[in-house]
Amino acid sequence: MSFSYRDASAADRAAELARVRAKHDELVGRGLALDMTRGKPCRAQLDLCNEMLNCLGAAELAAASADPRNYGGIDGLAEAKQLFAAYLGVEPAEVIVGGNSSLTMMHDAMVRAILFGVPDGAGPWNGGARFVCPTPGYDRHFTVCEHLGVEMTAVAMTDDGPDMAEVEALVSSDPAIKGIWCVPRYSNPTGITYSDETVRRLAAMKTAAPDFRIFWDNAYAVHHLTDTPPPLTNILDACKRAGNPNRPLLFGSTSKISFAGAGVAIMAASADNVADQKRHMAAQSIGPDKVNQLRHVAFFRDLDGINAHMRRHAEIIRPKFEAVAAAFAEELEPTGVATLSNPVGGYFFSLDALDGTAGRIVALAKEAGVQLTPAGSAYPYGKDPRDRNLRLAPTLPEPDEIAQAMEVVCNSVKLACLEQLD
Amino acid sequence: MSFSYRDASAADRAAELARVRAKHDELVGRGLALDMTRGKPCRAQLDLCNEMLNCLGAAELAAASADPRNYGGIDGLAEAKQLFAAYLGVEPAEVIVGGNSSLTMMHDAMVRAILFGVPDGAGPWNGGARFVCPTPGYDRHFTVCEHLGVEMTAVAMTDDGPDMAEVEALVSSDPAIKGIWCVPRYSNPTGITYSDETVRRLAAMKTAAPDFRIFWDNAYAVHHLTDTPPPLTNILDACKRAGNPNRPLLFGSTSKISFAGAGVAIMAASADNVADQKRHMAAQSIGPDKVNQLRHVAFFRDLDGINAHMRRHAEIIRPKFEAVAAAFAEELEPTGVATLSNPVGGYFFSLDALDGTAGRIVALAKEAGVQLTPAGSAYPYGKDPRDRNLRLAPTLPEPDEIAQAMEVVCNSVKLACLEQLD
Repeated sequence: MSFSYRDASAADRAAELARVRAKHDELVGRGLALDMTRGKPCRAQLDLCNEMLNCLGAAELAAASADPRNYGGIDGLAEAKQLFAAYLGVEPAEVIVGGNSSLTMMHDAMVRAILFGVPDGAGPWNGGARFVCPTPGYDRHFTVCEHLGVEMTAVAMTDDGPDMAEVEALVSSDPAIKGIWCVPRYSNPTGITYSDETVRRLAAMKTAAPDFRIFWDNAYAVHHLTDTPPPLTNILDACKRAGNPNRPLLFGSTSKISFAGAGVAIMAASADNVADQKRHMAAQSIGPDKVNQLRHVAFFRDLDGINAHMRRHAEIIRPKFEAVAAAFAEELEPTGVATLSNPVGGYFFSLDALDGTAGRIVALAKEAGVQLTPAGSAYPYGKDPRDRNLRLAPTLPEPDEIAQAMEVVCNSVKLACLEQLD
Repeated sequence: MSFSYRDASAADRAAELARVRAKHDELVGRGLALDMTRGKPCRAQLDLCNEMLNCLGAAELAAASADPRNYGGIDGLAEAKQLFAAYLGVEPAEVIVGGNSSLTMMHDAMVRAILFGVPDGAGPWNGGARFVCPTPGYDRHFTVCEHLGVEMTAVAMTDDGPDMAEVEALVSSDPAIKGIWCVPRYSNPTGITYSDETVRRLAAMKTAAPDFRIFWDNAYAVHHLTDTPPPLTNILDACKRAGNPNRPLLFGSTSKISFAGAGVAIMAASADNVADQKRHMAAQSIGPDKVNQLRHVAFFRDLDGINAHMRRHAEIIRPKFEAVAAAFAEELEPTGVATLSNPVGGYFFSLDALDGTAGRIVALAKEAGVQLTPAGSAYPYGKDPRDRNLRLAPTLPEPDEIAQAMEVVCNSVKLACLEQLD
């Protein structure tokens, strides 16, 4: 039974608090051990690609554009560049196919900018570079900035992407602001997809820094939960049209398509940016693991193959997302103390509870055996100014575990919010 | 027919020059297209590992210490750490198993030192850090320094390793000298292995910089051409005994054991250094490709497996090394204008001709269709002060191609040296 906590009488709230506390004690007694912290694929998702482990024989090696077992090919195997150019909607010459981690590509691109600068810039970014960070956002993006000493300035996320009025005001006035982090589709964690207007404004906005860069982490480009995914405007095309071809650096990976630990990472950008990256990469590597790139080409063949494969992923994880949404609708929505995002793709839910309760909720859930991402982790420096946001990652647990975990989450939210209202 | 060029009469030298010039014209006319530039394994070597491409089934995945297909394990899969700890002669906790490139691990370790510093140091290395570079040495090491703005100071190589008197004088007097590059076994390109005394002096020498680092690139740790490899003292043990446990960073890879493009790279160091690297790596990656690491464990099983495999490599490449040495002994040794190294392992020969001839030799060989590594590439900034050193890489061509290429190399050396003596 749930009801609007704010509208309830003090007596009703007190009775509810007692019930919820008793329930919490009961949940603690269950001795659960569940994990909703990270966007990790589950075993059934990984199993979808097991054939990729053994898909390269003499025929595939012989047909490859270069011997993938030997050195060389700093920007990847030609057929992999072709596949992933289609994936990102760019030309093969605009793609670099790398190792197993797009995070590494983003981190290293930031390091290169700090040490050397980027095309259109006056020199290295070291000393006082700042980045715009739509929040809530992806904690590992913010960790890259924090670790490398790039100061972060938060802007709010809306259902259409970052609050563009805020973004435009910041980037047009401060030449130290060198870039912005974006997860344009199924944004981590709110699940929204940037609107066409947002993409166009990002591409066209005036920036005080001539070497402003959009770090466009299209991590969930094909990770749909429905058959009618929202459209996403191509950022590289939009930037070219706006006369800012060097503005975006696009990133992606197959970490949540093939194997989270053994996928293929990609970046794409203008010819100038690609040449600049390759110049630095040539000092760092003789070439990426082209055998693994060939595995991906042999297994998926083309973009249709990837899309077909993603429908199988969706079949596995959609019930988990539905279980989260159903538990929220049943238990929390009527209380009026929390809102839940409505993702139609990607890997996360974002839950906002009453201000000042997120840290307490995470602690309560932990008492009851459910690990959640630390409160604040979707914000720069780990500080959620309203201490209200939780990220829920439903893919790793099994559906029955999701139901158990959500029982804990919902009751923890109730308890923390009732305490707060008291 | 060859004879001592220096001791010959002017008339004999003139006749020889005419013969050698005519031979050069004949060689140019053959239209060869051979490549001795890089230490690339040949197809037969790569084929030795083809079974590794398909060696992971359900049983191997189930038996793994962690699901290698999923995220995690920043320092590698436990069983890979065990295998490669044995490989480098260190404890598993002292090893980080990474991606496909030890060059990347070295480059990134240098970047981290520049941006953040290292244990025992007072801060970042940026601004004026210098490295000692034994020469001739590995061009890609020098490229890392040049690209990242680390100034290089050359010291001479001897048959026992770097000239330690030179090294000790430099590192004890200049606190800006932060490290030294070493290829301790089958050094690239001279093929020598550091003597026990060299290793002990490197470990024990007084350094003006408290955060001095030995970048110990043990690229050819098991790459023997004979059954009686020279011993190599363990640098980490030696440094611990000398009270300098944080001094060495050890690197290695399976690039010339399994696949040059799809092997596994490793680094090893003291607990302090490992913790320092992992702290930075955590911002750069969620973890390496553990599937490929498991492939290596499944295929090689243990160090004995690696050593047995290396004997098969040796059988393939030993005839190529013998072909180079035989051609030199037949054609060049009697002329007295060149010396050749005598590698018993590794991937290279080092050939010293008369001062001032290396660039000309490379140009002449190119005219005759044989690509050699650019003259000077084994020296910092690509400058061989005596312009006399050539690196020969005999593994990629077939034995009959080696013979053809060496015909060109020997005649090019003769021609350039005769021109020089005139």
